[in-house]
Amino acid sequence: MSRALDLDEQVDDLVLLLDLVRHGRARTRPELARRSGLGRTVVSARLTRLLDADLVVEGELGPSTGGRAPRELRFRAEAGAVLVAEVGATGFAVGVTDLGGALREHRHRAWDVSAGPEATLDRIADDLEDLRGDVGDVAPIWGLGLGLPGPVEFASGRPVAPPIMPGWDGHPVREHLAGRFGVPVWVDNEVNTMALGELRHGVARGVSDLLYVKIGTGIGAGLVTGGRLHRGAQGAAGDLGHTAVHEDSGIVCRCGNRGCLEVLAGGGALARDAVTVARGGHSGRLAARLADAGELTARDVVEAAREGDQESRRMLEHAGVLIGTTLSVAVNLVNPAMVLLGGQVGASSDQVLAAVREIVYRRSLPLATRELRIEPSPLSGRAGLIGAATMVVDELLSPARLVRWLQDGSPVGRADLT
Amino acid sequence: MSRALDLDEQVDDLVLLLDLVRHGRARTRPELARRSGLGRTVVSARLTRLLDADLVVEGELGPSTGGRAPRELRFRAEAGAVLVAEVGATGFAVGVTDLGGALREHRHRAWDVSAGPEATLDRIADDLEDLRGDVGDVAPIWGLGLGLPGPVEFASGRPVAPPIMPGWDGHPVREHLAGRFGVPVWVDNEVNTMALGELRHGVARGVSDLLYVKIGTGIGAGLVTGGRLHRGAQGAAGDLGHTAVHEDSGIVCRCGNRGCLEVLAGGGALARDAVTVARGGHSGRLAARLADAGELTARDVVEAAREGDQESRRMLEHAGVLIGTTLSVAVNLVNPAMVLLGGQVGASSDQVLAAVREIVYRRSLPLATRELRIEPSPLSGRAGLIGAATMVVDELLSPARLVRWLQDGSPVGRADLT
Repeated sequence: MSRALDLDEQVDDLVLLLDLVRHGRARTRPELARRSGLGRTVVSARLTRLLDADLVVEGELGPSTGGRAPRELRFRAEAGAVLVAEVGATGFAVGVTDLGGALREHRHRAWDVSAGPEATLDRIADDLEDLRGDVGDVAPIWGLGLGLPGPVEFASGRPVAPPIMPGWDGHPVREHLAGRFGVPVWVDNEVNTMALGELRHGVARGVSDLLYVKIGTGIGAGLVTGGRLHRGAQGAAGDLGHTAVHEDSGIVCRCGNRGCLEVLAGGGALARDAVTVARGGHSGRLAARLADAGELTARDVVEAAREGDQESRRMLEHAGVLIGTTLSVAVNLVNPAMVLLGGQVGASSDQVLAAVREIVYRRSLPLATRELRIEPSPLSGRAGLIGAATMVVDELLSPARLVRWLQDGSPVGRADLT
Repeated sequence: MSRALDLDEQVDDLVLLLDLVRHGRARTRPELARRSGLGRTVVSARLTRLLDADLVVEGELGPSTGGRAPRELRFRAEAGAVLVAEVGATGFAVGVTDLGGALREHRHRAWDVSAGPEATLDRIADDLEDLRGDVGDVAPIWGLGLGLPGPVEFASGRPVAPPIMPGWDGHPVREHLAGRFGVPVWVDNEVNTMALGELRHGVARGVSDLLYVKIGTGIGAGLVTGGRLHRGAQGAAGDLGHTAVHEDSGIVCRCGNRGCLEVLAGGGALARDAVTVARGGHSGRLAARLADAGELTARDVVEAAREGDQESRRMLEHAGVLIGTTLSVAVNLVNPAMVLLGGQVGASSDQVLAAVREIVYRRSLPLATRELRIEPSPLSGRAGLIGAATMVVDELLSPARLVRWLQDGSPVGRADLT
C-alpha cells in the first residue's frame, strides 16, 4: 500500500525519465539529470525502478575520456511486442513491432473496407495470428494498435459516422480485438497514425507543428500542434477531403455531398478520369493499360506520368492545384513547420508535389511559408503501422499504466481481457 | 540555498494548486486534494507557502453541514495589478486589471498604427500612466500585456513581418515598454489575446478547441487546440485574412497580394463598397450618412442593415459567405467545439453571423458540426484587454517566476527593468 502510494508520487518522474531515454534525448545519468531538471539522487533512485523492471538497461563503461566515463542507458525495446494494423479503403496491412516501433515483419492484403467491421476485423485478426506465428520467437504481446480510414472517438476506440465505412459507425472495435488477443487495444484515424509515425520515427522528428496529408483513394490529414496529435472536439480533425471546392460540380462524393476535394482530386477521381481519357483516345499509354488490365488505378496514372504521358501529368497537376488551394488555407491557419504528402499518390507523384508547392508558396502568407518544408513522406507506406505502434507504447507508458507495469511486471490488466 | 532547492522541487505542485484555486476549480482543501491528486499533507504544506505569500487567502468557517465545514480558499486577485493594451488598425485601448483579469478601468483612442512603433508605444505608455493615476489606489503593477494586429514572435515579443504595420517589423516592443514601467512585458497577436479572454473568462471557458475570428477592419483568427493557444512555427498561425479567395480580383490587399479574404470581406472592404453604393444611388440611408460624415465605416453598414437597408444587408451577407467558405475549411481541419465571431463587424452583424452559420453547417463535415457552436463573442470589445491580462498572469505564475515571487515577495526581477 505504501509502496503503491509511493509509486503514484514518483510516476511523473518515471514517465519523464523513460521518455528521455526512449526518444534518445538522454543516454547517460548526467544527461538525464540535466534534461529532466531532477537532482542526481532522485534520478538514481527512479532509474533503479526502471532498471529493476527491465524497461531500461545500462551498458558497459565506455572508454574514459578523463573523469569517470558514464554508462550508456538504453530503452529495452525488445522487452515486448506490439501488433499493428492499418486499414485503407482498398486494403489493409498488418505488422509486428518492438516497443520502439521498429517493424519486424509486415504484410498487405487487398480488401474492401465496406465488407463491414465483423468480417474485416476477423480477417485482420487471422492475419495477425499468422504473422505472429511466422515471426516465431516474439516477445510478449503487450498491445494492439489499429488505424482506420475515418474519424474515430479516441477515448472509446469507436468509429464515428465514417463517410466511407458503411456499418462501422459506433462499432466496438477495441472490444472486438481485445477479446481475441487479451491485450489492450487503441484505435485512431489512419492518417493520425501516419503523422505519428513520421513525427516520432521519421523525417518530422522534433517538429512541433506538422500537417500530414494522405492522398490515396481518398484525401485526409493528420494535424500535430505543439508536438501532439490534434484530434478535435469529435475526433474529426483533419478531414480536408470533404471540403467543398466546386459545389456546382455534378459529381457526388462517397460522403453524399457534391464537389468535395476528394471526389475531384483523390485517387478515385484520378482513376475515373483516366478511364475517360483512355476511352476518348487522348492517351495511348492509358488506353493500352486499360485494355490489358480491364481497369485503371491512380497508380497507373502516376506511372504513366513518370513515363512522360502528357494527359496523366495534366491530371495530376490539376489534382495538385486543387489540393494546394485547400492546403494554403490550412497553412495560413496552422503555420506548420512541415507539410508531408503521403499515400499512393501523395508520396510518389512529382506533379502533385510540384503543384502543391507552387500554390501554397504563392497563396499562403510569406511569413507562414518562409521556413515551411513541403515534402513527400519518406515512410509513407509504413508510417501508419509504425505510428500505430507508437500510439500503443505511448499509452502503455502513460502514468496509470506504468504504475501497474512496475507493480505487476506487465502493463496488461484484467480490464483489458474482455 | 536549501530552501531555494526545496522550492524548485515543490514548484510544480504550487503552480498546479494555484491554478486550481485561481480558475475556481477547487475552493477547499479537500477539493484541492481530490483535483490535484496530491495527498492532504502535501496540499497543506504547499498551501502554507501560498498563504504566506498572500497569493491565496483562506476565508472564515462556513456553516457546518454535519462534519467540520471546510474554509473557502480564494486567489488574491487584488494582490497586484496588470497594465494592458490592445492595438487595432484604427485605434488602441488601454486598461488596468487585477490579477484575475477583471478590468478596473479602460479607455479607447483613435490611432493609426502605421504611425510606427515609437510614436504608438509612447502614446500608449502615456495613456497607461494617465489611467494608472486616475484609478488611484492601485495595487503594485506586476506586468504589462500588449496585443498587436499582426504576427508576433512570442518568445521575444517582436512583431514579425506584420502586413499592416509598416516600421514595426522586429521592433523591440517588450524592451521599449519594460524600460518605461520597470515591469515584465508580454506581447502577442491581438486576436490571440481575444481568444484567451473568452477562453479563460468568457463564454469559451472549459472549451478545449476554439476558433476565434475577429472581423474588424481586417480579418484574423486565434486558434486554441487542447486548451492552449496555438501560435504556429513562426507565430503566424491564425492568419485567415490573407487567404486568397479570388485571385482574379483586381483589388490589392494591404499585404500586397490580390483577392485576399480580408480585402474582399473585411471592414475596410465594407466601407469601400458602401461608398460606391451610396454614390451610385442604391441606398438612401448610406448616401445620407456619407453626406453627413464625409466618410463611411463598416459600423455604418452594420447599423444601416439593422435599420432595414437592403443594400447593406446584401453586402454583409456577401462578406459572410466569403468568410464562411474559408471557415468551413478551418472547421474541417481543426474540428473545434466553438467558433466565436468578434470585432466590430463579427460581433454585431446578424447578417454575417447567419451567412457564416449557413455556409459552415452546409459545407463542413456533419460530424465536425454536429455539436459546433458558432456565436458572436460576448466580450468582444474587452476580450483583448482581459486576454492580455490573462497572458501576463499566466506567465507570472509560471514555475520560474513563481519561485522568484515566493523568495522575493515580488515576481519582478532585475532582468525585467531594462
